[in-house]
Amino acid sequence: MTRPNLQVALDHSDLPSAIKDVTNVGDIVDIIEVGTILILQAGDQAVKCIRAMYPDKKIVADTKCADAGGTVAENVQKAGADWTTVICCATIPTMKAAAEKIEEVQVELYGDWTYEQAQLWLDAGISQVIYHQSRDALFAGETWGEKDLTKVQKLIDMGFRVSVTGGLDVETLKLFKGMPVYTFITGRGITAAENPAQAATDFLAEIKRIWGE
Amino acid sequence: MTRPNLQVALDHSDLPSAIKDVTNVGDIVDIIEVGTILILQAGDQAVKCIRAMYPDKKIVADTKCADAGGTVAENVQKAGADWTTVICCATIPTMKAAAEKIEEVQVELYGDWTYEQAQLWLDAGISQVIYHQSRDALFAGETWGEKDLTKVQKLIDMGFRVSVTGGLDVETLKLFKGMPVYTFITGRGITAAENPAQAATDFLAEIKRIWGE
Repeated sequence: MTRPNLQVALDHSDLPSAIKDVTNVGDIVDIIEVGTILILQAGDQAVKCIRAMYPDKKIVADTKCADAGGTVAENVQKAGADWTTVICCATIPTMKAAAEKIEEVQVELYGDWTYEQAQLWLDAGISQVIYHQSRDALFAGETWGEKDLTKVQKLIDMGFRVSVTGGLDVETLKLFKGMPVYTFITGRGITAAENPAQAATDFLAEIKRIWGE
Repeated sequence: MTRPNLQVALDHSDLPSAIKDVTNVGDIVDIIEVGTILILQAGDQAVKCIRAMYPDKKIVADTKCADAGGTVAENVQKAGADWTTVICCATIPTMKAAAEKIEEVQVELYGDWTYEQAQLWLDAGISQVIYHQSRDALFAGETWGEKDLTKVQKLIDMGFRVSVTGGLDVETLKLFKGMPVYTFITGRGITAAENPAQAATDFLAEIKRIWGE
């Protein structure tokens, strides 16, 4: 089983603090995400700066695009992003329009999506999804459970590469043992740690311990 | 019947061209929208510049927020926005978190939302929705029809203030005659016109002709 990727989400409200944090962990992680909060605050400058710092790293612009997929995807692609995200309630034409303008599109799963919709994404050539515990749901006391793991496995069985995110820590990773998760995404689990580089190293070590090198 | 508002959406991919266009129409329209494309490109600078130009105008930051509602709403509020948008597949905790940080939140209707969900938004104190013809759906040949008007009327009957948008022109407005639409939103219908000020004036004149002053 290929080991899952480790992705750091930069969900800062300003570019300087995002840059400060990424310098500590950018070389350790597999994928760097320019988070929605950051891109809404700093615009395409955020993507451009991270690309300038990490010319060879996979970079995701987390636009959560709902409309005007072609324009949004083209803009972040020009700024240096490899991938962008679309929201699950976007229409198929929006998703397809985005997918035409950038290497890959990932569907962000929020709210009441269905497996029937998910099949339509696959049929449209979109094979990456991001399974969330919403940050606000986590604040409201929800957490990872069997219900989530079942959904993640079903999406994998359908043929998706599935990223998981939301309140993950090193202890949580073992819940996914035996599942070919594509990517674990964490933001403050790394960036808000006392020692972010150590936190990223610990995440990666635990991934390698469970899934192999 | 109170006349519907006219809202111009600035969906430019760069701030200078948005500023150029808004100077021609900002004093004519009721509401100025810093569109999603623009805010993803220029960040909170876009909101700050438009607020600086129009200190007394209602300004919407169209973030289409899907998560981290509190942070996103607080950030655009600090930049000068009166309202922001959330996507319909966001969770209720996300919507509530956003609504706590800014004067008002509008729910953007994309994809397969239900009236049961809409009732939950009302129950959460959110009473503005935006009914779309998706830009990409329009590109794919869809248009306004009886199906759309019925949905808009039902949302109004539920107690929402409903904005409508997507491929509107002066000719389209009369389709909504007799319906207390809250706001008509148009972007390129005004900004891409040969004479944007004249286009905005024509939109407003038609609104006043149909709904009164």
